[in-house]
Parts: sequence; structure tokens; C-alpha cells
Amino acid sequence: MAGTIPREPSVSGLPLTRVVRALPPLVPFVGPEALERRHGRPLRVRVGANESPFGVSPAAREAMRQAVDEVWMYNDPEIHDLIEALAAHHHVPPARVHVGAGIDEILGLLVRLFAEAGDPVVTSLGSYPTFNYHVHGYGARLVEVPYVDDRVDFAGLGDAARKSGAHLVYAANPDNPMGTWGTAGAALELLASLPAEAMLILDEAYSEFAPPAAVPAMDVSDRRLVRTRTFSKAHGMAGARIGYAIAHEEVVAVLDRVRNQFGVNRVAQAGALASLGEPQHVRSVVRQVRQGRGELAALAEELGLGHVESATNFVNLDLGCGERARAVQAALLGRGVFVRMPYKPPGDRCVRVTVGTPGQRSAFALEFRGALSEVDGR
Amino acid sequence: MAGTIPREPSVSGLPLTRVVRALPPLVPFVGPEALERRHGRPLRVRVGANESPFGVSPAAREAMRQAVDEVWMYNDPEIHDLIEALAAHHHVPPARVHVGAGIDEILGLLVRLFAEAGDPVVTSLGSYPTFNYHVHGYGARLVEVPYVDDRVDFAGLGDAARKSGAHLVYAANPDNPMGTWGTAGAALELLASLPAEAMLILDEAYSEFAPPAAVPAMDVSDRRLVRTRTFSKAHGMAGARIGYAIAHEEVVAVLDRVRNQFGVNRVAQAGALASLGEPQHVRSVVRQVRQGRGELAALAEELGLGHVESATNFVNLDLGCGERARAVQAALLGRGVFVRMPYKPPGDRCVRVTVGTPGQRSAFALEFRGALSEVDGR
Repeated sequence: MAGTIPREPSVSGLPLTRVVRALPPLVPFVGPEALERRHGRPLRVRVGANESPFGVSPAAREAMRQAVDEVWMYNDPEIHDLIEALAAHHHVPPARVHVGAGIDEILGLLVRLFAEAGDPVVTSLGSYPTFNYHVHGYGARLVEVPYVDDRVDFAGLGDAARKSGAHLVYAANPDNPMGTWGTAGAALELLASLPAEAMLILDEAYSEFAPPAAVPAMDVSDRRLVRTRTFSKAHGMAGARIGYAIAHEEVVAVLDRVRNQFGVNRVAQAGALASLGEPQHVRSVVRQVRQGRGELAALAEELGLGHVESATNFVNLDLGCGERARAVQAALLGRGVFVRMPYKPPGDRCVRVTVGTPGQRSAFALEFRGALSEVDGR
Repeated sequence: MAGTIPREPSVSGLPLTRVVRALPPLVPFVGPEALERRHGRPLRVRVGANESPFGVSPAAREAMRQAVDEVWMYNDPEIHDLIEALAAHHHVPPARVHVGAGIDEILGLLVRLFAEAGDPVVTSLGSYPTFNYHVHGYGARLVEVPYVDDRVDFAGLGDAARKSGAHLVYAANPDNPMGTWGTAGAALELLASLPAEAMLILDEAYSEFAPPAAVPAMDVSDRRLVRTRTFSKAHGMAGARIGYAIAHEEVVAVLDRVRNQFGVNRVAQAGALASLGEPQHVRSVVRQVRQGRGELAALAEELGLGHVESATNFVNLDLGCGERARAVQAALLGRGVFVRMPYKPPGDRCVRVTVGTPGQRSAFALEFRGALSEVDGR
């Protein structure tokens, strides 16, 4: 379902660059809308993309509706007000904040800045497919470090970076798709272990859901560290396309030289600014997600299944092996339930379920029981 | 005001790619918000960015407000419904439509596809700064062909492409910043004159405002032709960030390999789809713009000035020389009026004024008279 899926036949006859000419036809994710079109029926329970069905805060909703009435104007290309607010929020100077059209866009820019064609780039085997998509897209090559006990192997990433001579290392903490987390200390040890000429992207898209011990203090005085955050998850703004990076001012300055200057749309800027001003919404979402994670764990236990402890807004339910997990995912899809699967071992023994609203949770539980019975022939 | 403006000191100490390391610190446009912050007062008359103050269609407004309530969901990465609607609108197969986060983003992708570092890329001298920004950004080099009689020199672009061996040629028709247009025949002759291994980007951002004779029939069977269009101008959705390209299916397929798959936000997709379904809005905007162009021409004549005949939603008022034009622009800014200037000869003798609403037009006329008197010492 996720990963890198062939899409188009080989392209020829165009004056493509060497890197693009060699690009395999890949797509990082198939969206639920595409699944609906293929299968000719709606997905009733959308718990596959780690979206937040708790929605946006009331202030963000109102700000975005007002921004619609001003959408004839270009957005502020300097993203001034939001950058100031984020700087205040994180107690860093504005020069250390870069805002982009989602972490996806920022990851693409970072690969473009730091990875020459042919260069090694280090990541976890089975980690975020969109990062891998960008690495392929700029002609760099992946050096992939397997998870250990379903966790990012921070020490292993450092070893691989030193051995391969990589200038770029990616680690998500908490991790997607596994949902597990490492300590702030482990992440900072990885940074310390990297050569002077290597950058670490610490993708913290799910940090709001994580225990404090997983999140390092907000210090980016080391110019090798780039921390990415998003409004797509806890803030409930996935479809608005807005995320940011906190990094040394030299990194932010060079991102400024290649970013799409008008790339962060007006509605998203307004919504993000308002959401930042209403932190009780995120707190409430985090509480509800915690309760939902507990319910999913209890469901797994009741059905004799394991689950992977999660510090995110999703839980991996452990089906024991890839074959059974794939069968359960297919059965769920047949029942109108959208989930994804981690696409590499060891995660591919699981189905990954986003914590939904109470209604989505009970609908999921019902269909999951049914799907499991169907697959197990009971 | 436009062009390429130094921004940051040189960046060092980061493991940047060779191309990025050599990048000059440039920014294609300073936004009106930045001008307001610098000068400490609001711009009362915003007629500098070729935005459409006539706003969006009622259907688009309603669709975008509804989309705000669904913004917790990611947007459809395949942009299926809008692509189908655009294909029907232009009578082309959906496989020949690419939708992106504004023409700016699409131009960046096209440069990335077709220009190696060091390659020549042909454009008009003084043409769209954001295209130039991307050419610099990927380490290619500009080959610039001067305007002739304030018009794009289509034959000259072809000559420059053949002489330089460029794989990529950019022409805007109607042109920005000049506002002039060439015939469909001239554009197609340019395409025919290009080597088999060269791509032509025909940027038609302003095509809705142009006479039919300026717009070639919608035929992209020649795989060397990419035509770009936008919802930013006549549709009034500049701040939503959505534009598209019509091109041969091989070009669309390869764009699919590098684009940000989730890059076109949900609100923009919904608004564009609705706006396409309400063509009377665009027709009404085009009528009002035509009237406004006439008023700006009459104002120029009354003040003893020339103007450049325009096929867009803006008019260049001819101040005769760069010094006077810059002085008038500065005087306008002091009066709270935002306009831009073409940044290279021959256009830099003009100030470029977007056609505003009737209220903006009379406010502009008042302040323009004042600014001119101020500059001319009368």
C-alpha cells in the first residue's frame, strides 16, 4: 500500500537530465481516494493516513474561512507572522525557523541541498517513503539500516553514516510507520557521533503525541541538526499543506535560496497561526489519542494479538506475519476500512491504524473483528 | 522591486551540493507585506502583483469554505476530479494535464527535468523572475534575448536556442512584465524552429485576458511543448497556490516522478474545481479588466504619457526613462500605493499597474497624479 509503487512505463524521447532519465517510476503513497476509485466504493472508516479526525481548532477554522475571502491576494512570501509566532512558541530566533508546504516539501529541499547524485543517504529500512522518494528523485542512493526490536537503530544510523560517508541522515522520532520512539539522549548521541560534514534530519512530525523524554530540548545551535514539525497531525491541518523546520540560521538561509518563495498558501498560513494561538485544542487531541491508543491495545489483547507500543496517533496491530497482515488489510478494505501497513520487515507483520474518533474506533473494532474472522476462517 | 535581489550573506560550513554552494542569495520578488513592514505603514492600494481584486466566484468561495471543514484530511494526491474537469474544459485527455501548486512550482519542476547544471536556458531579458530563480537554483545558465518593441522576440528566442544548444526555452504569451502579446502563429513558429531536443514552455498565465489570436489551439501532440495556466489571475485564487500544465503525456508522466505528490492543497483543489464550473465569473472579470485597461490608457494620455498596449490584467504606464519611473514608483509607495516595475530595459521606463476595482482605479488615478507632480516638481 505504501512504499514505492511502479506507476508509468518508461519515458523516452525527452531531453531529460541524467538523474531524471534514470528515475524509476515510483509513487510513495496511494491515497484513499485512489483506492475508492479503483474499488468503486467509498471508504467508510478512514484510519490509514494518520490524519486527525478531531479536526482543527475553532480559531483555526474561523481564520481559514476568513482567509478564503482574501485568497485573491498572494500569501506573504516571507511568512513573517507565522515565523514570528513559531519562534516565540519554541523560544528560538525567527532566523532559525523555516516554514514550508508540509514536511514533504521541506524534505525534498533538504535532499536537494545536501545530496549530490550518487551520494549515500542514510535512513531506517522501511521508514518514511516520501523521504526515500526525494532521495531517488535527486539521484542519491539509500543506505538503509534495519529497525531493531521495532525501533529506529540510532547507533546503527551513525555507524552507517560514518562507514558510507553520507552527508545526510534521516531519523523520525517518534517513528513512522512503527510508532515507537527513542530517547532524546539517543537522538543527540546520534548527532554527536556524525562526522562534521553530515546533516541530521530529525523528523518530529508526531512529537506532540510523544512522552517528553523523546523530545530533545529545542537547541539547534549545532548547524548539522534540522528538526521538522507539522500542522498535519495534532493540529489537524493535513490538507492545508504546512509544516516547518527548526534549524541553524545558516540552514534556514540556504533553504531560502531554493524554496518556492510563494509556496505556502494563504489559508494555511492563517490557519496555522490561529492554531498555534489555541494550544488547548492540541492538548485535547493528544488526550483523546492517548485514550484511543489504549482502546486499540485492548482490542488487540482481547483478540489474542500483540501491538507495538506507540508514541504517535496510530498503533500497529501485530498479526504475526506479513501474509496474515496483508490478508487482514485486504479484508478491511473490502469492508470499507482504510488502513496502511508498514511496508518492510519487521513492520510488515502489522496493520497500522490511526486513532479515530470514538465513532470511528467502534466502527473499526467491529470491522476488524470481522476481517480477522474472515482471514482466519473462523 | 522585482528581479533578483541580494538577501543573505554567503553561507559556509554546510555540506552543500556544488550547485547550491555556488548559488547567489536571490529572491525573485519582495512582497507587499514586506514593503509594509519595512516602511511601517499599510499599502492602501494594492495594484502591484497582478492579483485579481474581483475575487473568486461565489461557487469557488463556497467550495473553499466547505473544504476548510475537511482540511483534516490529506488532499487527493492524484488530483483526480480537477484533472478530469480540466481535461474536459480543454478537450484534451487527462493524461495531458498536470496540476501543481501554482505555475511557480511547475516551472521549478520543468527546470529540474530538463536543465543540467551548466546548461543554457533561453528566455527573454527581463522576463519572469521566478523562472530565472529556478534556472539559477538548478545551476543552469540564462541566455537572455532582449525584447523588440516591448515584445517577446520569438524568432530571436529560436535563434538563441539553436546557437546555444539549449534544451529549454521559456516564453510568456501574453508577456509579463510587458503585457504585450505575440500571435499564436509566432509561438508555433518558434516551436517548429526549435531542435528536436529542446522543450518550449509557453507560459499562458494571462491567456484569459488575451485576444483569441494570441492563443494557439489546444494541441500538445508535439512533446516539446508545455503550456502553463493558472487559477491565480482571472480566477482570483493567487493565495490558494494552484496552476496547471497542458503537455504531452510523456511530459506529464515524468512530472509525476518528481512532483510533491501531496503538494496541491485541499482548499485549492476544491476552489479550482468549482471555479471551472462557473465560467461566467471569469468572463465578467475579463470584461471589467478590459474596461480598466481603457481607463488606465486614458489616464496616461491625459497626463501626456504613453502606455504599453496590454493583453493582460495590468498596464505599463510609460514614464519615458528609468529614473523618472523609479521616482514615480517611490512616490507612489510613499502614498501607500503598491506597483511594480519591469526590471530591465526597455520596460524599466514604466510602472506596471494591475487593473483594480473601480474604487482602486480612482484611488490609483488620484495618487498617480500626485506622485507625477511630486516627481516632476510641478
